[in-house]
Amino acid sequence: MIYDVIIIGAGPAGLTASIYAQRANLTSLVMEKEYMSGGQVVNTYEVDNYPGLPGIGGFELGMKLHEHAEHVGASFINIEARHIGLEDHGRIKVIYTEEEEYRARTVILAMGASHRKLGVPGEKELTGMGVSYCATCDGAFFKNRKVAVVGGGDVAVEDALFLARVCEKVYLIHRRDEMRAAVSLQKKLKECKNVEFLWNMTVQKIVGDDHLECLELIDLLTGKERLLDVDGVFIAVGTVPDSQIITEMLQVDKDGYIVADESCRTSVPGIFAVGDLRKKRLRQIVTAVADGANAVMSVQEYLNQE
Amino acid sequence: MIYDVIIIGAGPAGLTASIYAQRANLTSLVMEKEYMSGGQVVNTYEVDNYPGLPGIGGFELGMKLHEHAEHVGASFINIEARHIGLEDHGRIKVIYTEEEEYRARTVILAMGASHRKLGVPGEKELTGMGVSYCATCDGAFFKNRKVAVVGGGDVAVEDALFLARVCEKVYLIHRRDEMRAAVSLQKKLKECKNVEFLWNMTVQKIVGDDHLECLELIDLLTGKERLLDVDGVFIAVGTVPDSQIITEMLQVDKDGYIVADESCRTSVPGIFAVGDLRKKRLRQIVTAVADGANAVMSVQEYLNQE
Repeated sequence: MIYDVIIIGAGPAGLTASIYAQRANLTSLVMEKEYMSGGQVVNTYEVDNYPGLPGIGGFELGMKLHEHAEHVGASFINIEARHIGLEDHGRIKVIYTEEEEYRARTVILAMGASHRKLGVPGEKELTGMGVSYCATCDGAFFKNRKVAVVGGGDVAVEDALFLARVCEKVYLIHRRDEMRAAVSLQKKLKECKNVEFLWNMTVQKIVGDDHLECLELIDLLTGKERLLDVDGVFIAVGTVPDSQIITEMLQVDKDGYIVADESCRTSVPGIFAVGDLRKKRLRQIVTAVADGANAVMSVQEYLNQE
Repeated sequence: MIYDVIIIGAGPAGLTASIYAQRANLTSLVMEKEYMSGGQVVNTYEVDNYPGLPGIGGFELGMKLHEHAEHVGASFINIEARHIGLEDHGRIKVIYTEEEEYRARTVILAMGASHRKLGVPGEKELTGMGVSYCATCDGAFFKNRKVAVVGGGDVAVEDALFLARVCEKVYLIHRRDEMRAAVSLQKKLKECKNVEFLWNMTVQKIVGDDHLECLELIDLLTGKERLLDVDGVFIAVGTVPDSQIITEMLQVDKDGYIVADESCRTSVPGIFAVGDLRKKRLRQIVTAVADGANAVMSVQEYLNQE
């Protein structure tokens, strides 16, 4: 079978693409490598900026988006896309997985982005044993204990707010003396009595054998080292696009984000990029869902001209 | 008082802008000339493509968006913006209404657009009960039924192509004997076995009580009348942006749509355009909410640089 469109990834962008594809009566398939649909959103504690659903839990929103796609008849397969190739002068796109090959006239790339690592000693070894990238997932394990958050963006501040409710003490470690997070969030965090800001600091080592024992920090202004006694560290220093399966074929920016404008057309005709892995200024659920719809519009244009 | 941002129009784009403005701790005001917030959506019977809220009533969705904005503390005023002027070398934008003047550092234009009407008996009465202006929005409701499309441009042909995949039968009604739509699109449509072209015809009446029963057509060459038995009619004879208050100042396209890219920046610094009145490819709720968020991002950038 040759699908009209295969959508790789089932976060808000991919799920919206599947909703629009179903409603346009295109034959479509959504491939998702994780057991759960929803992308990063399912690991988010609370989402308060998806219009119409104020204060919804991230997991619940992920489920709602998935159910909506199912409600309009979307087909899902729990499989990892490994590579994408072209056949018939590019008219057919082939998606290779570990076993099967899948063919489609168009592909919508919706693999999203993943968490950036600090890249310091101990980080990899202690992941899941004190090192986490998701406060929503792991925060409850640190109830009434001491934790640190590393970062200065919205996610770092949101994680710290979450952890301040759960933990005895939260340190926010940031390499500068000001954060780029939304002012309203910062204000909220500064009101938390159990939060302490450690400015101009970086983590240079995560210490511990079978569990995290402490963080080795360095003060970037004085060069002085400091040991910080915490039970956990939450790393919130950005994301990297999961575009590896396709970057050889497509135009990407220096960080690996796929170059495509609002129409979601990439440099290869019939391949479209949506959501967090597209080069864009603002990565939000609202911009992801817009991409999903725009990409299906572009898919229809492409199929109409074929 | 000088607001950080005044948002004109309270449809999905304007309301999302207000949500993002509130969460960014900006002083903001939403101006809406109608009694009800929600824009076109409140007059929509059912919305099935706003992800997470399948099959929601348009009125209910409009209310949810409004309540979300209120929940995060947005301020509303029920007043009509008549004209926009500049003061202090453009740094202050003045919004003139019938009585008061309002001042802000930035303005987000969210007045929307409306579909051009045929202006025939029954059209207004049966809107949402068989008469639609958006195949992408409503086409799926007519699965395996008979519909007509009225128009001869790209949108009419794209709508007909969309509906041909969904519906049992599609009539394309056009007042001339040729269309101005792209030839490639026309060719594709002519290949559809379930599409019938009715040339040199216009709709002179839409018949039905609580739902559309048939269309009364007139043949412009012979003057003969004909009844066409369909379940729905999609009117695709163009749209008009509600941009009149500002077109003198801003770059607009030939139809009056405000020229701005995904960042929503117009040709005048500090003035942003979102939603249906922005020149864009796909006018949907999902693309409107994305604009709302992107515009507030641009507002913050503008204010930070001021």
